[in-house]
Amino acid sequence: MLYFIGLGLFDEKDISIKGLETLKSVDEIYAEFFTSKLFGSSIERIEELIGKKIAILNRQEVEEENVFFKNAKNKNVALITGGDPLIATTHTEFIVDAKERGIDTEVVHSSSIISAAPGLSGLQAYKFGKVTTIPFPDYNYFPNSPYLAILNNLKNDAHTLVLLDIQADKDRFMSINQGLKYLLQVRDKLVEENSNLNDLLINEETLAIGIARAGSKDKIIKAGKISELLDFDFGNPLHCIVIPSKLHIVEAEYLVKIAGANESILDDL
Amino acid sequence: MLYFIGLGLFDEKDISIKGLETLKSVDEIYAEFFTSKLFGSSIERIEELIGKKIAILNRQEVEEENVFFKNAKNKNVALITGGDPLIATTHTEFIVDAKERGIDTEVVHSSSIISAAPGLSGLQAYKFGKVTTIPFPDYNYFPNSPYLAILNNLKNDAHTLVLLDIQADKDRFMSINQGLKYLLQVRDKLVEENSNLNDLLINEETLAIGIARAGSKDKIIKAGKISELLDFDFGNPLHCIVIPSKLHIVEAEYLVKIAGANESILDDL
Repeated sequence: MLYFIGLGLFDEKDISIKGLETLKSVDEIYAEFFTSKLFGSSIERIEELIGKKIAILNRQEVEEENVFFKNAKNKNVALITGGDPLIATTHTEFIVDAKERGIDTEVVHSSSIISAAPGLSGLQAYKFGKVTTIPFPDYNYFPNSPYLAILNNLKNDAHTLVLLDIQADKDRFMSINQGLKYLLQVRDKLVEENSNLNDLLINEETLAIGIARAGSKDKIIKAGKISELLDFDFGNPLHCIVIPSKLHIVEAEYLVKIAGANESILDDL
Repeated sequence: MLYFIGLGLFDEKDISIKGLETLKSVDEIYAEFFTSKLFGSSIERIEELIGKKIAILNRQEVEEENVFFKNAKNKNVALITGGDPLIATTHTEFIVDAKERGIDTEVVHSSSIISAAPGLSGLQAYKFGKVTTIPFPDYNYFPNSPYLAILNNLKNDAHTLVLLDIQADKDRFMSINQGLKYLLQVRDKLVEENSNLNDLLINEETLAIGIARAGSKDKIIKAGKISELLDFDFGNPLHCIVIPSKLHIVEAEYLVKIAGANESILDDL
């Protein structure tokens, strides 16, 4: 049996009781932390909690060598990951692969930024459109797609959850500041390419919400114009951004009273 | 201090260790089960796990009388709910209300159908558009909005998670079959009102995925044309539906190999 087990949002205590009991019962435990990371914890604290060793796999060992499959037909094996275990796109492929190898699978869900961020932002979950992710730019790699995804959501009256790139192997975790700067740079690029400025609704004046360390006691939720958040110190990772579409009064009140947005946003409703 | 604690998807063991430890430490515990319900558990089993009594509140006690606020200024009080605690729209309002009353709040997240369903359906989480909910129809109440929300997502190449109404006080939980029938009835109504049939992309031939009892060992994930699922027995609640937009080959393979969809969907890619 192969178990896919989520560790949840932030530290070793975000795993469910079901997940913990399963980890205590299995023969082998593998972890992948390149699509996510538990910032409030260390692998040692998780090992202590479950009383056994965990083998950490790199991307190649997970995606190409599939080392966790090796003994899963005859033993109970768990693959653990931060957040919910099926949010990483490769993990649903593993369920298909396991079936073809005659290995049974089971999933133990956990808290995920996908469901936690809407609530923390004070915005209604059913008003969120497609999620997008801002990647670390690279030589010849600076896609407009995250900007265009938000634009498309805005045109559909949909809020956007913007995830920020994780390159755990290089210890790089994109900050809210870097993400917002990225969006403004895409705007500049589109202006250079003669896009109509009136269509470029995401600019320094756009309302944004930064969420740092969701699931922790010292989380920060801060709303303001992009220009106001560009230099705000959100502290340690993980970070994400929410770009709201048209606000309902209840949503706006939360942003003012809980997330420190300027009261003027109430006038714009 | 007022804690908002999520119980997670299915049974009493879906709560996080953090949630369990918090419940063991607080002075008073209130539960609301009208926006969600733990189907794999009973209140007694949760009480046993935490070793103290839980007061179950009805909608009026939660939303109008706010009884959980009463002692939260001087005591540690927890309000628990199924799923993630901030998905219910009223709960972000309570955070604002608490602040105005001078009560500190903390959130303990948990697994939620919002993040679990995309993965279980085998579809990529970042391709989901706005969530919609099908309500139990009533005298003079049969909104087209869930149908139109799916239609709008399809036009945006976005998958849709369709939640199904919960009327826990009446012990009514909408089934996948009822939800699919509702969608076809809206289609009939729109045809009667002379909508263009070519625009009504959701019909008996539409591919749908039914998910029953997410988070449990006996979950069912079954994909097929709406006509094929209309009479399929998915068993006990809770149920939800996913209506996929254009499929990627990896998504289609999951639907065929894991969710029992007809292989012909691979030809349509």
